Amino acid sequence: MEHSNKDRSLVSRVMDGLVTGIVEEKYGAVLPPQDVLSKEFDVSRTVMREALSMLLARDMLDVRPKVGTRIKPMHNWRMIDEDVVNWRFRAKPDPLFLRDVIEFRILIEPRAAAQAAARGSAADIAAIRDAYDAFCAIRPGEPGYQSADELLHTRIVTASGNQFFGQMAAIVRGALSAVGQTIYHKDRVWETAVRSHGRVVEAIERRDPEEAEAAMRALIDSTVEEVGSALAADPLHR
Amino acid sequence: MEHSNKDRSLVSRVMDGLVTGIVEEKYGAVLPPQDVLSKEFDVSRTVMREALSMLLARDMLDVRPKVGTRIKPMHNWRMIDEDVVNWRFRAKPDPLFLRDVIEFRILIEPRAAAQAAARGSAADIAAIRDAYDAFCAIRPGEPGYQSADELLHTRIVTASGNQFFGQMAAIVRGALSAVGQTIYHKDRVWETAVRSHGRVVEAIERRDPEEAEAAMRALIDSTVEEVGSALAADPLHR
Repeated sequence: MEHSNKDRSLVSRVMDGLVTGIVEEKYGAVLPPQDVLSKEFDVSRTVMREALSMLLARDMLDVRPKVGTRIKPMHNWRMIDEDVVNWRFRAKPDPLFLRDVIEFRILIEPRAAAQAAARGSAADIAAIRDAYDAFCAIRPGEPGYQSADELLHTRIVTASGNQFFGQMAAIVRGALSAVGQTIYHKDRVWETAVRSHGRVVEAIERRDPEEAEAAMRALIDSTVEEVGSALAADPLHR
Repeated sequence: MEHSNKDRSLVSRVMDGLVTGIVEEKYGAVLPPQDVLSKEFDVSRTVMREALSMLLARDMLDVRPKVGTRIKPMHNWRMIDEDVVNWRFRAKPDPLFLRDVIEFRILIEPRAAAQAAARGSAADIAAIRDAYDAFCAIRPGEPGYQSADELLHTRIVTASGNQFFGQMAAIVRGALSAVGQTIYHKDRVWETAVRSHGRVVEAIERRDPEEAEAAMRALIDSTVEEVGSALAADPLHR
């Protein structure tokens, strides 16, 4: 067990050294091979492999067969621990948690939609339209509905071009899946969802930040109402 | 190496099983002893210890000498990977990164200040005042100035009572330390900082959400101006 703790702090030290080299642009675009790095840091290949796998799991590196280990652009580095986010949303939602996540979404998503309208690339906006079309083509309860909804929201947040908002996509997805289980079985909700998402998408396509922001806020507000009435109707969820 | 990968996926599986038990409230407030858990999951004590240490590092557990391993309240579970946040802020800041972090702060912090004013507890607000007094008692360049600033901002974000805003404290701290290196050597900046932080703290104490929000926005705006002029004056930072 002491051995394992020692290994762990050694792995941390190596990770830290690798990251220092990366942010100081010592390695360029591609890391040296593992055995070269092991020698540089004077550690076993197992320790080096562990350290690299920790960075890989955080979207900091990209292993490509013939190229080697590429260093990903820093704005991709994952600041959100998606395991913890998923675990947190897997627990039975208490009212305070729902309040907090709605407050958070209502701050982040409308602003992200406005920025997507203001400065999303043509490719970003085409990807949003594709995701919306896919979302419209599938009914709640059918497999893939949840992930179509999540993809649309993720693409809007990504199109904002702000790397911090982009990072928050994991929290938005968690919120959507928590909400989905509560309300998506209702047909009327689905029709509203298609309409309200359409309003956001069209505003982004028209490059209208104010309308995109207002439409996203309205979308979240209507979701909040539905969740509220679903929770009130279902004593299990109180 | 295969052995190490096998161990890793085993550790993941055990973590996942532990978390499932925790969110289903199977264990109550305190986890069973490690050897009991090892038997329950049919894994070695080393694997169980690894899995527990991963949860510990994410603020999900709390080891207390005579009590055992307590399960922390879920709102404390750390959704932000502070290592990555710190690494990201350690890199030389590019203009796009600065823009993004300012956009993020200007969204999160004013709202958090408003909520601190609206619903922070008396203890939260006293802690904010203490942190402000400590911040005023120390000059830029003296050891501890940076952490006094960070503590004040952290306490405001925490006093919002919103667990997602609270989680963002790590990003706010990163932004403060990046900014600090650029501007805190100037006396005039320090006087402005004391005044502008004071305005936020007093508004929170008066339970005035609108003023707290406006004061925090003004504080960030003035920081942005200082950073802009410092960057323009220092060709190294371009």
